[in-house]
Amino acid sequence: MSSPVEHDPAIPQGGYAQLIGYRIAEWRPDHATMSLEVDGRHLNRSGVAHGGVLSTLVDTACGYAGCHCTVPGHVRRAMTLTLTTQFLAPVRAGTTLTATANVVGGGRSLFFSACELHDGEGRLVGRGEGVFKYRPGSESPAGEPLGPNG
Amino acid sequence: MSSPVEHDPAIPQGGYAQLIGYRIAEWRPDHATMSLEVDGRHLNRSGVAHGGVLSTLVDTACGYAGCHCTVPGHVRRAMTLTLTTQFLAPVRAGTTLTATANVVGGGRSLFFSACELHDGEGRLVGRGEGVFKYRPGSESPAGEPLGPNG
Amino acid sequence: MSSPVEHDPAIPQGGYAQLIGYRIAEWRPDHATMSLEVDGRHLNRSGVAHGGVLSTLVDTACGYAGCHCTVPGHVRRAMTLTLTTQFLAPVRAGTTLTATANVVGGGRSLFFSACELHDGEGRLVGRGEGVFKYRPGSESPAGEPLGPNG
Amino acid sequence: MSSPVEHDPAIPQGGYAQLIGYRIAEWRPDHATMSLEVDGRHLNRSGVAHGGVLSTLVDTACGYAGCHCTVPGHVRRAMTLTLTTQFLAPVRAGTTLTATANVVGGGRSLFFSACELHDGEGRLVGRGEGVFKYRPGSESPAGEPLGPNG
Repeated sequence: MSSPVEHDPAIPQGGYAQLIGYRIAEWRPDHATMSLEVDGRHLNRSGVAHGGVLSTLVDTACGYAGCHCTVPGHVRRAMTLTLTTQFLAPVRAGTTLTATANVVGGGRSLFFSACELHDGEGRLVGRGEGVFKYRPGSESPAGEPLGPNG
Repeated sequence: MSSPVEHDPAIPQGGYAQLIGYRIAEWRPDHATMSLEVDGRHLNRSGVAHGGVLSTLVDTACGYAGCHCTVPGHVRRAMTLTLTTQFLAPVRAGTTLTATANVVGGGRSLFFSACELHDGEGRLVGRGEGVFKYRPGSESPAGEPLGPNG
Repeated sequence: MSSPVEHDPAIPQGGYAQLIGYRIAEWRPDHATMSLEVDGRHLNRSGVAHGGVLSTLVDTACGYAGCHCTVPGHVRRAMTLTLTTQFLAPVRAGTTLTATANVVGGGRSLFFSACELHDGEGRLVGRGEGVFKYRPGSESPAGEPLGPNG
Repeated sequence: MSSPVEHDPAIPQGGYAQLIGYRIAEWRPDHATMSLEVDGRHLNRSGVAHGGVLSTLVDTACGYAGCHCTVPGHVRRAMTLTLTTQFLAPVRAGTTLTATANVVGGGRSLFFSACELHDGEGRLVGRGEGVFKYRPGSESPAGEPLGPNG
């Protein structure tokens, strides 16, 4: 969709990241923070952020938390096994959602993450947790070389 | 985005429904079926549908299942309290996801729904369940008049 | 607590199964049904079955569903990774709870199960789902020999 | 089962609390800590604490966190709507489990709680979260008078 030169490194690869518009705000071993500026594209028919938007952020932040990679140019990939989201308060357009996730358990092949969602005023608006499985080759923090197709 | 005349009634109101592109395939009391043609916009960096896409469909189908309204021109609204999704198989671009949800419990103010996700070949690729709370005025199947802002 | 001769084969081994009193009603590949006669021991301070009782049945039935073993004298073991329970109706003493669980997905090392809980009148009183990981040696339907300590 | 004089106030009323043996370690507005000495009664057929034991503690601590009552002799009651537990590490007999729960959201009729489970060495062995609904009369922190049947 864009060359590596043009690609904003804070926006993850993949069409869905572009579609929703979330960005990586912080990424280190066992931790990831994603952010999203909520606008009209994210609203349900009741005028607040759709539950799918919050679940998307929980899934993304929880997954990235376990996939930090120590080797430049390498990647680590995982698939979500199960995801739970609690919706604590409605979220309106104009605020910035921050999803803060940490790995809370796991081993070589699996990891558990937990996430909190805050709005731009610092209110806790959601929470969530997920279980993830590393794809073959991604179990080590060194990850694997990024192939020609990303 | 579009006038009421142009609006495809199968695409729910709200920017997020337009963004993701899911459609109402069937809607009756205590049941909703949503469908989505998966394309490049829905993929994560590993080339399969993002977990947020499946969670979005589970949330939408489960919520609609409890919000069927018997009075033309009226609506019923609910907010998600909690949502869980199980991811059973990867979903690739080119298939059509179908989310089939039924209300499985609840009372006047709350309802519980459960959902299954199948791909275009009829494989069960995901499951989920949610708890929802009716917004004030939406508890009755008769719903409430649709306001000027939808 | 009892010798192998005295042990009721419908009550699973393990102190907790004895403590709660659930029984295996049906067990075949990818399916398990457990039953429990609810009495005063299972009630919370409000006089209905404690949520932990229902979660226990969901966990047990879901886990057993993936651990049926085709070789007499062998066993298969798994550990729960995550469990979700929906509580649809209060359960009172004097009824028999039936937990019906099926494997709905998974592969060699992991499985996903889903469960429904009905009371003695056939009402759906709860639902749940879990993700499980086989212990090493238990991945195959042939299982592994039962050791001297069970 | 026991007269009020004999009843250990740290053990909640209800047969199930007696059966499992958990105790209230700390209880204040929006917070509860429960503890359990794990012994042979709590083990599954693999010799570790049954998932139902951990789910029981998550349910109990999360529920109590929202039911602290400011009026002596009054009570507040709630029912669990949904509960999720993550199992991070096996728990063996001889340790003391501590379930620490806080209310993280909600309003007049509902509350959301989150819980962490630690073993006697301070390891995080589980986590969980639940949504609860107050029983009629229990919405206010003042609670309601304890009836003749507890």
